[in-house]
Amino acid sequence: MPAWSDFFADRTRNITSSSIRELLKLIQKPGIISFAGGLPAPEVFPVARVRECCLRMLDEDGRAALQYSPTEGYQPLREWLAAGMTRQGVPVRAANILITSGSQQALDLLAKLLIDPGDRILVEAPTYLGALQAFNVFGAAYVTVPVDEDGLRLELVEDALRSGPKFMYILPTFQNPAGVTLSRERREKLVRLAEKYGVPIVEDDAYGKLRYEGEDLPSLMALDCAKRPEHGNVIYLSTFSKTLAPGLRIGWIVAPPDVIAKLVQIKQGADLQTSTFNQRLVYEVAQDGFLDAYALTIREVYRQRRDAMLNALQEMFPPEVGWTHPGGGLFLWVTLPPGSDSRQLLELALGEGVAFVPGDCFYAGDSDLGRRQMRLNFSYVDPDRIREGIRRLSAAIHQHLQVAGSGSRV
Amino acid sequence: MPAWSDFFADRTRNITSSSIRELLKLIQKPGIISFAGGLPAPEVFPVARVRECCLRMLDEDGRAALQYSPTEGYQPLREWLAAGMTRQGVPVRAANILITSGSQQALDLLAKLLIDPGDRILVEAPTYLGALQAFNVFGAAYVTVPVDEDGLRLELVEDALRSGPKFMYILPTFQNPAGVTLSRERREKLVRLAEKYGVPIVEDDAYGKLRYEGEDLPSLMALDCAKRPEHGNVIYLSTFSKTLAPGLRIGWIVAPPDVIAKLVQIKQGADLQTSTFNQRLVYEVAQDGFLDAYALTIREVYRQRRDAMLNALQEMFPPEVGWTHPGGGLFLWVTLPPGSDSRQLLELALGEGVAFVPGDCFYAGDSDLGRRQMRLNFSYVDPDRIREGIRRLSAAIHQHLQVAGSGSRV
Repeated sequence: MPAWSDFFADRTRNITSSSIRELLKLIQKPGIISFAGGLPAPEVFPVARVRECCLRMLDEDGRAALQYSPTEGYQPLREWLAAGMTRQGVPVRAANILITSGSQQALDLLAKLLIDPGDRILVEAPTYLGALQAFNVFGAAYVTVPVDEDGLRLELVEDALRSGPKFMYILPTFQNPAGVTLSRERREKLVRLAEKYGVPIVEDDAYGKLRYEGEDLPSLMALDCAKRPEHGNVIYLSTFSKTLAPGLRIGWIVAPPDVIAKLVQIKQGADLQTSTFNQRLVYEVAQDGFLDAYALTIREVYRQRRDAMLNALQEMFPPEVGWTHPGGGLFLWVTLPPGSDSRQLLELALGEGVAFVPGDCFYAGDSDLGRRQMRLNFSYVDPDRIREGIRRLSAAIHQHLQVAGSGSRV
Repeated sequence: MPAWSDFFADRTRNITSSSIRELLKLIQKPGIISFAGGLPAPEVFPVARVRECCLRMLDEDGRAALQYSPTEGYQPLREWLAAGMTRQGVPVRAANILITSGSQQALDLLAKLLIDPGDRILVEAPTYLGALQAFNVFGAAYVTVPVDEDGLRLELVEDALRSGPKFMYILPTFQNPAGVTLSRERREKLVRLAEKYGVPIVEDDAYGKLRYEGEDLPSLMALDCAKRPEHGNVIYLSTFSKTLAPGLRIGWIVAPPDVIAKLVQIKQGADLQTSTFNQRLVYEVAQDGFLDAYALTIREVYRQRRDAMLNALQEMFPPEVGWTHPGGGLFLWVTLPPGSDSRQLLELALGEGVAFVPGDCFYAGDSDLGRRQMRLNFSYVDPDRIREGIRRLSAAIHQHLQVAGSGSRV
């Protein structure tokens, strides 16, 4: 009596059961103020522009938009992205670009290409949960290096590199989850160390365009290119999910052409190609500088929301709680005092009507520190609701600290 | 001096270099008549309907269409698909359905869940190239069973099952590449054998709706359900690529809810979710029986094209060449006489201005038979061009048989 249900009962494939997607379900409950997801503010989505571009695309070349197209991606979009990368100090051509089904797929394709079971990957602590999910399926092990307000703690990187990781996975700008940014000085040193130890870098830049203060920093890929025009030591990935709309699922990888050729073969087996319709639509929307203008809008909206959250935290959180001050992106990162437990806090917080993601989800291994941390998203909820949500969360924290405090006395 | 380009130079990951996507590039050359791809006829794409549904979707709930959404898929689409499966003898609910980024992704997710390196999969000979690509990445090995005009040769299946394959991957209806269909009697026997030997079935039904003659046959999943209402021994996958438009990349998997739950976790790591926009669009397009009406149109167009190709083959091909008579789908399958080589023929054919896919691409291992076979697609090219293409191909075959004949005399 075989049955699929029994067939893989003993198979776990290192798949974590508590995942970013499960957590996103929290936001569905009525009345809950969610700081849990990484969702853009839907009220600023450029629906009118998308509508106009859908019509133009369908009227001018509707058949092509509905047909199969090459795995590499829609050639005008690849060229447009290559020109944009070139303006940011990464002189590449279309052959260096692979369009992916969101940048999550970029992580999956790179994992397929690069990771054999037991390979160690150097990751930040904390790091992006979705990357851990993508890498875990292929049996990755990890070497972790903590971050501070200036990103990866460089004084600890050299030891980690000596242990021989296969590659580094780094989110240098407005990191998910901590919201921190690798300083200019550390970027240059990291690129030098990568070359010195022969450990290449996968640079995840999902949030770099969402800067609310200060000046843009060069990407790790740009610094690598400046040193070595053949830009061989960094693979870069990014997405339109935060700067246009996540529901379209369009991301991209920048890499040497021979790496792209390998990734194209892998992508053929993974999903043949990313939606022709969506690639052409994103290209249409991006024309005439629309995305630059739109970025001004979302930066303004998100800056206000970040400030609303920072102000509310300052005003309401107990003094023994700390948090990061992100210069951009979607998240800030809260550290509770020793003895706290952010999963227990989450239960109290859901009771109060507010949600977040517990910090331990973002660590490659067990982390005592992570168990008293949490990620707060400030892009999805409007400033008034942010203030109300932080009020609820403060109430939950006060309850939790009382219980944790009394617990430690027992 | 590390560099990504050197980094994986010795890694092949079982990736075939000649792939379906590379071959699709053949159709880009001006003047070439392509029987190579598996492309729908773009001139019958329902562009007006898609346009109307885009507008309605964006006007009524544009923000939701652009936002993240659950990994499992758009709930109304899952329910619509479950109702359709139920009408076809597979009584399931939304919890049995996972929306995928085309059915190619279904193969990738199933491979991730099920295949450990060295696991043997029972596949037809020939079988779908894209499945071999998806499975090879995870180190699959194969047990092959040849097909004839009635599909998988059942008298050979029992021996193959005794060798202990992990699962069977079967395309029972209008198989890609051979165009053959598993008979009713063989379907029932195969489902019984699967249960007897404890080897579950992955049923790929990409083409079942494209029937040009005869009556619909029950799916393997329907037969399994009829025997065992818990329908535990078949996983079914299909796609909107052939019945609506491939450029939207929407497919689905039907499986027991606990299998779906595992696949959802895997899909989170693979691409988070399939495009919200495209799922909602497909759902809108499908309402009011539109896809049933549209299926009548495409069946009529493709039937004419199949008949045009069969007539041209009958008229022009040398008598020592054989081919299948598909009752539906997109492909027919040609077998050249012993001593022929379809890759050599392809070079001659491209010189004549016509393209096809050589048969050996569709075999899991080396195949002497496959090297003198080829797949011809009849859906993409209109009947006049089909006739001209077969004329060119006949000329190439005549040249090839002369050379092959003289070669065998040397």
